[in-house]
Amino acid sequence: MHTLTVELGDRSYPIYVGTGLLTRADLLLPHINGQQVLIVSNDVVAPLYLDKLISTLSDKQCDVIVLPDGEHNKNLDTLNLIFDELLLKRHERGTTLIALGGGVTGDMAGFAAAVYQRGVNFIQIPTTLLSQVDSSVGGKTGVNHALGKNMIGAFYQPQCVLADIDVLESLPIRELQAGLAEVIKYGLLGNAAFFGWLEENMDALLARDVNKLAEAVMICCEEKARIVAADEKEGGLRALLNLGHTFGHAIEAAMGYGTWLHGEAVAAGMVMAADLSRRLGWLDAADAARARALIERAGLPVAPPPDMTPAQFLALMSVDKKVQAGKIRFVLMKELGHAVIESGIHPELLEQTLSAGNTLCR
Amino acid sequence: MHTLTVELGDRSYPIYVGTGLLTRADLLLPHINGQQVLIVSNDVVAPLYLDKLISTLSDKQCDVIVLPDGEHNKNLDTLNLIFDELLLKRHERGTTLIALGGGVTGDMAGFAAAVYQRGVNFIQIPTTLLSQVDSSVGGKTGVNHALGKNMIGAFYQPQCVLADIDVLESLPIRELQAGLAEVIKYGLLGNAAFFGWLEENMDALLARDVNKLAEAVMICCEEKARIVAADEKEGGLRALLNLGHTFGHAIEAAMGYGTWLHGEAVAAGMVMAADLSRRLGWLDAADAARARALIERAGLPVAPPPDMTPAQFLALMSVDKKVQAGKIRFVLMKELGHAVIESGIHPELLEQTLSAGNTLCR
Repeated sequence: MHTLTVELGDRSYPIYVGTGLLTRADLLLPHINGQQVLIVSNDVVAPLYLDKLISTLSDKQCDVIVLPDGEHNKNLDTLNLIFDELLLKRHERGTTLIALGGGVTGDMAGFAAAVYQRGVNFIQIPTTLLSQVDSSVGGKTGVNHALGKNMIGAFYQPQCVLADIDVLESLPIRELQAGLAEVIKYGLLGNAAFFGWLEENMDALLARDVNKLAEAVMICCEEKARIVAADEKEGGLRALLNLGHTFGHAIEAAMGYGTWLHGEAVAAGMVMAADLSRRLGWLDAADAARARALIERAGLPVAPPPDMTPAQFLALMSVDKKVQAGKIRFVLMKELGHAVIESGIHPELLEQTLSAGNTLCR
Repeated sequence: MHTLTVELGDRSYPIYVGTGLLTRADLLLPHINGQQVLIVSNDVVAPLYLDKLISTLSDKQCDVIVLPDGEHNKNLDTLNLIFDELLLKRHERGTTLIALGGGVTGDMAGFAAAVYQRGVNFIQIPTTLLSQVDSSVGGKTGVNHALGKNMIGAFYQPQCVLADIDVLESLPIRELQAGLAEVIKYGLLGNAAFFGWLEENMDALLARDVNKLAEAVMICCEEKARIVAADEKEGGLRALLNLGHTFGHAIEAAMGYGTWLHGEAVAAGMVMAADLSRRLGWLDAADAARARALIERAGLPVAPPPDMTPAQFLALMSVDKKVQAGKIRFVLMKELGHAVIESGIHPELLEQTLSAGNTLCR
């Protein structure tokens, strides 16, 4: 097992990465103050891993709420089910919420913890590759609103994150691939050596080699922890983590959330970002092609949905949270492993990328 | 005009107390970063003061949402109306929410600001005596849940608080009196000299003497600011502000929220706290009688509803947020102006207070 600390002063917390962690009471119990625990899980993950976690916490008052899975359930109504359970079971301020599930579960449990009685403790146990490398690190929690994704939420840090690599064995291949999109993102945005490592090890990752997966999760968490520690509230540097997301959120919104997985939309978005970076003369053609090729090898889309028009992209991107004073901000690449934030993009270059379709990065 | 600063490091903010403040663009504008403002008000206050505030902000994109007034509307559904408006009008992260109303409006607008896009700026313009002396200072925001009051919320500080004494002129007398309950609370819990001042000036306050009201608001805000600065997240000292509230919340819950005003329930609760303090041998009989007498002079109830049983009190008090490890915590008085927190109360003494009815403090 590896341990990594996210350095945030008095809100610092450890991330444990390894195998067999779900049964490690010695890791979990030191992060639970009181006698009360509420496990928040979903109807896909609970049948697989809930019993194991409950036995690990056998000496606590261990209540459970199983939510319907899926991005379309990440809303205030579902959130309220968590509050119902907490209040019905009389959970006090000293309680601890444990998220056992993917990003949606973690975002909702984390936000519920942030606002229940104005803040109680919580622990993240992410069960997808995507949530292990991304959403469980950094304290972003929240729910969607009918008019926008992740529009209601809080920055709220967990007591610890427990990334058990064993649980990735049961993950559907499409979700594993979607997780690899965010893994590749860390290479593209800030770590060229890791990008090279991914080119070497992509086959092993797709074959779920436990050691390689653990190594990838560890490196991604380190990258993210470093960025979050430097910029907890997304003043600047942290925005680099949105590489591929400005385009990707537009794809998700256009297709209806859940039609494309988040990672799939980000994958196509990263190819678009690479393409735009090449048109700006920043990324050379060979490196843009390498970015596209690695994303393709991971089994991910490398172009937006064929029926999405540039006008649709522009309309959807202009309502994103990342808009500042009406200007769309893009995360682009100066070179592989070096992302920057840019808001003054020439409309003509942007138009070319938005209409390039299957010829992106070519 | 007086200015007072709540000292909370990089979250410090000023409270302005005085007359004619609603038209003071010079006070408001320095606390608004961007061009976007959403005024959150209610259907009682908006007809009286909304136009005045909008003219003060004439060079901003000034949107408005008017919520139905009343504690029973302080819930997630009403909160969502604020998010709807923010998203329909495309408010970005740089927006500022302004609460123009009483405690309910301030609690909801503040919580909406705390969680919209994971946190935007907000300004409090409290329009009741209660909210001027209490709920607008200290950063407690939130909404009720069907199973408990203020169960969902956040600690979130405003950019500034603007307490315009002029608006108290239109306040119904019952609400003015309810506000005086919290005013008296500050004397009882930590400032014996202020308690004496209130005995001298109660008639002037009830007659809405603007100078006396301003002085009272200023002193209460100072008292609260001092306590909040020492204990922002309610680790210890801040719990003293709950004097009268453990009993009071039980009364509100038993009667149905809104039947008794919050201040009225707290008033009766403070008399019960004084009574219990006397039975413990802490407060002498003369001082307990002074506490009761001042509360009575303010036109406030000095006994709980006659049909509430001790068993009902105990049941309701045991689900309060202030319960720790199953024990009810009381704020009691060692002497007038000196409150302490006590959780190990002898059940027999408590029973005597709960069944004393009109003989409390006698």
